[in-house]
Parts: sequence; C-alpha cells; structure tokens
Amino acid sequence: MQRICLECNKTYPINSLEYKCECGGLFDYCGSTIKNKIELISLGESKTPIIEKCIEGINLKLKLDYYMPSGSFKDRGAKTLVSTLKDFQVTEIVEDSSGNAGASIAAYSAAANIKCHIYLPENTPQGKTQQISSYGAEIVKIPGNRENTSRAIKEACKSQYYASHVYNPLFFEGTKTISKEIFEQVGLPEAIVLPAGNGTLLLGIYKGFKELTQDHLPKIIAVQSENCCPLYNEYNKIEVNRYKPTSAKGIAVENPARKKEMISAINESNGEIIIVSEEDIAKAKKELGYSGIFVENTAAVGVAGAVKFATRPENQEFNLVVPLTGTGLKET
Amino acid sequence: MQRICLECNKTYPINSLEYKCECGGLFDYCGSTIKNKIELISLGESKTPIIEKCIEGINLKLKLDYYMPSGSFKDRGAKTLVSTLKDFQVTEIVEDSSGNAGASIAAYSAAANIKCHIYLPENTPQGKTQQISSYGAEIVKIPGNRENTSRAIKEACKSQYYASHVYNPLFFEGTKTISKEIFEQVGLPEAIVLPAGNGTLLLGIYKGFKELTQDHLPKIIAVQSENCCPLYNEYNKIEVNRYKPTSAKGIAVENPARKKEMISAINESNGEIIIVSEEDIAKAKKELGYSGIFVENTAAVGVAGAVKFATRPENQEFNLVVPLTGTGLKET
Repeated sequence: MQRICLECNKTYPINSLEYKCECGGLFDYCGSTIKNKIELISLGESKTPIIEKCIEGINLKLKLDYYMPSGSFKDRGAKTLVSTLKDFQVTEIVEDSSGNAGASIAAYSAAANIKCHIYLPENTPQGKTQQISSYGAEIVKIPGNRENTSRAIKEACKSQYYASHVYNPLFFEGTKTISKEIFEQVGLPEAIVLPAGNGTLLLGIYKGFKELTQDHLPKIIAVQSENCCPLYNEYNKIEVNRYKPTSAKGIAVENPARKKEMISAINESNGEIIIVSEEDIAKAKKELGYSGIFVENTAAVGVAGAVKFATRPENQEFNLVVPLTGTGLKET
Repeated sequence: MQRICLECNKTYPINSLEYKCECGGLFDYCGSTIKNKIELISLGESKTPIIEKCIEGINLKLKLDYYMPSGSFKDRGAKTLVSTLKDFQVTEIVEDSSGNAGASIAAYSAAANIKCHIYLPENTPQGKTQQISSYGAEIVKIPGNRENTSRAIKEACKSQYYASHVYNPLFFEGTKTISKEIFEQVGLPEAIVLPAGNGTLLLGIYKGFKELTQDHLPKIIAVQSENCCPLYNEYNKIEVNRYKPTSAKGIAVENPARKKEMISAINESNGEIIIVSEEDIAKAKKELGYSGIFVENTAAVGVAGAVKFATRPENQEFNLVVPLTGTGLKET
C-alpha cells in the first residue's frame, strides 16, 4: 500500500507528509484494494439508490449519491481516506475546502477521532462553514484570496498530513466505490454523465470501472459550465484568460491539478466533454425539483449535459446513468 | 380502508374532505396495512441505519432517520399519505407547515404528480420555504400570525384535500414504519427516547410497536424543551399561560391536537415525559456533531433526554434507541 508518482514512478508511503512527488508529479494509489485490509469508519452510509426519471423528455437513471451522511458523494472519498489514515495512526490532518469535500473530511475525521483543520479564505461566508464547524473541525481563516490559502495550506502540510481531495490518491480510492454500486444496480451503462471540476468523481468512476470491466468502460461524458470549462478548452485547444462565475460552485475550478488524467480517462472511455449554459443548469435543477429531487446546482450540471447528449439522434437509445453529487439543502 | 373518529367511532372514507369528525373528534386510521394494497411512491428511500455512539458518557443506539430523501423522518408519513391519495385519484392537496412536514409533503407530491399548496404566515423566512418551492409546491402566504394561517387552511380544506401531518391518520400509518425497522435492526429496545411536538413520531412509534408486539411495548420516553412543554405540563397538571421560544423548532407546538392520544400511548408503554433545558439541547447537539452526526436542534432534544434518563442509577443498564429526526443542514 503506497503512493506512486504518475510522472517518474517513485513511490512514497501512504502516511508520509509529501503530497506531491519531488519531481512535481501527482500521486496515484498503488496497492491492493483497501477495504479488505483496514477497518472502515462508518457513519451508517449504505448503497445509494438509482431511480429512473424522465427529465426534459429524456429517460435518465439517476444515482442519488447525495443520500450520504454529510449530503454529498464526497463522503465516499473521505471514508476511505480517513479510515486509512486512522489505520496508519495519523492523528491530525489539514484540508482546504469550504464545500462538500471539507464537510465530508470533517465528518469522517470526527467519527474517527482525528483532529481536523480546514484552511479557508477569510471572507468565506459563515453559512458555508457551519456544517464543517459542527463536526468540531477547526476553521483556519487565511487573509487575502484563494491563492493565499493555497500557499498557507502548502506551508502547513510540511508538518501536518494533507488530507486533500485533489492530491491524495486515497480519496479517489474512495470515490471509485460508486462504480461497483452502479454495476451491481444496473449492469454496465453505455455512458455515465457527470459534472467535472477537480475530477474526484470522474477519476473515481474511471478507476472503479477499469477494475471491474478492464477494457469495457462506459463512455465517460464530462460536463462543465460554459462559464468555467478548462477541461473543454484544453481538449479543444481553446485559449481563455479568464472565466466567469458559475452557479455550479462544486466545479468552479479554473485549473484542475489532474486535468491530464481526466482527459486521458475520457479518451480511453471513448467519451467526450460537453458544456452547458447557466440557463441549462437552472432548467435541469428545476425539472429535478419538480419530480421530487432537490440537488445542488453542480448536480444539475450533469443532468443538463445528459439531456444535451441524449438529444442528439445517434445517442437517443443510450442507457445513461447520471450521478447526483450533492443535496440542494447546502445551497438554501 | 377508512378513517374513524376517536371519540364517537363514526367512519369516513379516506378521500373525503373532512379532516375531523362532525363531533369534533380526531381521526384514526382503520383498515388493513396499506402497503400491500397500493403502489408506493418512491424517492429511493431505504431502511435508515442505526449506529452506536457514546454521547456524554451514555451508550446510545441512534436511528439516523434524517438519512431520508428530504432530510427528515417525516418522509415516512408523506410517502404513505401521498401514495394513498394518489391511489384514490386525489390530484390536489393543501398543507400548512414550513418545516420538515411541508418539505416532505411537497417532495412526495412532486414525485406523485399531485398539485400541492403550502399555506404559511406571510413573514415566514424565505430560507425556510426554498426547499418546498424547489419541489414545485405553491406557497400561499397568509397575512398576519399563525392563527390566521390556521383559519385560512381550514377554509381552504372545505374544497381541497387537507394532507395534514397532524390531522390525517394516514401520515401516522407512514411514520409507524420506523418501528418495524428498529425491531428488525436491534430487536425490542427497553426504551425509545424521542422529541415530542405534534406526536407524528411518538404515535407512529406507538402504533408500529403495538402491531408488532401487542402488549410488549418499549417504554416511550417523550422529551420536550422546558421552554415549550405542554405534554409535560398536562401530565403533571401544571398550568402555564405562555411558553418561551425554543431552539427546537420542530417541537415548538403549544397545544398539540393529539395530546390525549400521546399521553395515553406513553402511559400504556409505561413510559414518561422528560424536559430538557436549551443548554442541554445545545450540548447534545455539539457532542453529536463532534462524533460526525450533524442534526437539527429538535433531534438533539431526544439525545439530551436520553442522557438525562440514562443517568439515573435505575436506568443505567437500559438498551436505548433514539431516533434522530432531521438534518442539521436545514438549520444553517
């Protein structure tokens, strides 16, 4: 059980403080499946349901992955990451997310009795931090913008373990569990349509199906807001200097660290990248709500993309699964 | 499948407009178990987990009943009520709750394609109605105080079906499903400790265990905030003219319509009524959070009561189940 550099193949122990390789490369996980070896921390989570709904005239299999303890699919990543760290006797961690990842890491750290510090820009609204604080995590407010916080966390993780949902490959070992559930619930879908920001869901889906089916991957259809679509632009060699704000906060990531891996996974699956407008997102969210499903805007991005994808004549018979990433309750 | 007056035994059809008997008595449900007869609307809900936690030094079995589609146990009541109404071809309903019950009724109505109107006092904060609106329910704002809204809904339900979580016995047919789950998960507990307001959970627990075990009921321990404890005062013949505000909004009910039934259920189970302070509630909520469980204040009331109950020497060996009613995400 180790971490391995995606660039130079150098390996590192699971619990050493480096979050990247000395060559600058990012880590992948390398070792046997974790869950057979360690005792998993539980908050009572179980397999999330898939229900079929007709949204904007398209039949979709919706994987309600926000029916998780803290309200988002990120609990999958946090569960595996925190459980493994507990097993390695890590007692204190740092992380920098005010969103779903921060809440998930804080919740599982609380359950594991691991001290957790969440680094955030000073001006983060209190509403966003209330859930994190409720789990007893310490909020460390950093003056200035997001860049300052990034610098501060990178300084902090010289002496404390960085339980990052972006850099730490154990997080993806957790998010990949969604694939096995989908496979057990509906078999191998032709395509999985999902919102893509940092790639925690996309790479989890990829890794999970890769292990399950080797070369028979479902098409991975990554969806981004046209206001913030670095993956789409990279893929299509479009140069953009500045992005606009998007209502889909969970994927408002201008420069995803694992962009290369994400594009490679999409290509290997014979998938594609779709962009949707803010109006598309709002419409999808509204239609979901009107059928009893109240989600965050980011979750509606996947549905908006699925509608766009399935509307093309050649895709109309496709069997589509759309994971819904987070609850709407966090955005009221 | 009928409704029967608890006072004079007169029966009424399930789908007639009366919400009370002409004698003034409240309705009970009378008929065979519903779920074998009708097709239940589903939002993908499944059995909620029970996990064991040590809170304030007391081992408790916590039934995480807020792991439900809309974030509270009230989904149980709404599921049965709305599914039955759908089966009886009711196409439009009214209800008056800005809290968990309103959200649940709105969510299942959306899934069932039933038009839903929620009556609320004009000054209800928008944050409280956002989830309800997201499901496509119409919010009907009534000028003036809560009393005006009560009058308005009673006027409205002369011509529209009143899907009330208080008056409609089908709601309790739904909340009783929690008992079967508890019984399957941990057998017959010695006591179930729960927050009590309108009695939707208390009477559900009672009805469920009554059907399962006849005379071997677990003790029903009802907990109220000392700031608003009409049940406790009725039981102990204490006269109070005015109650104070409580942080436990879900049980801030000054004059519960089914008070008599609730006290009778508590007595039959050899249970009791406990009051807790606002400080007790805050402390229980904090300890729950610090173990990874983020709940609404009302849910913490049950835990605070359980701690008080189990601290007594004679109760220390008791096997306690505490249902957690609603997610903390609704109170951020």
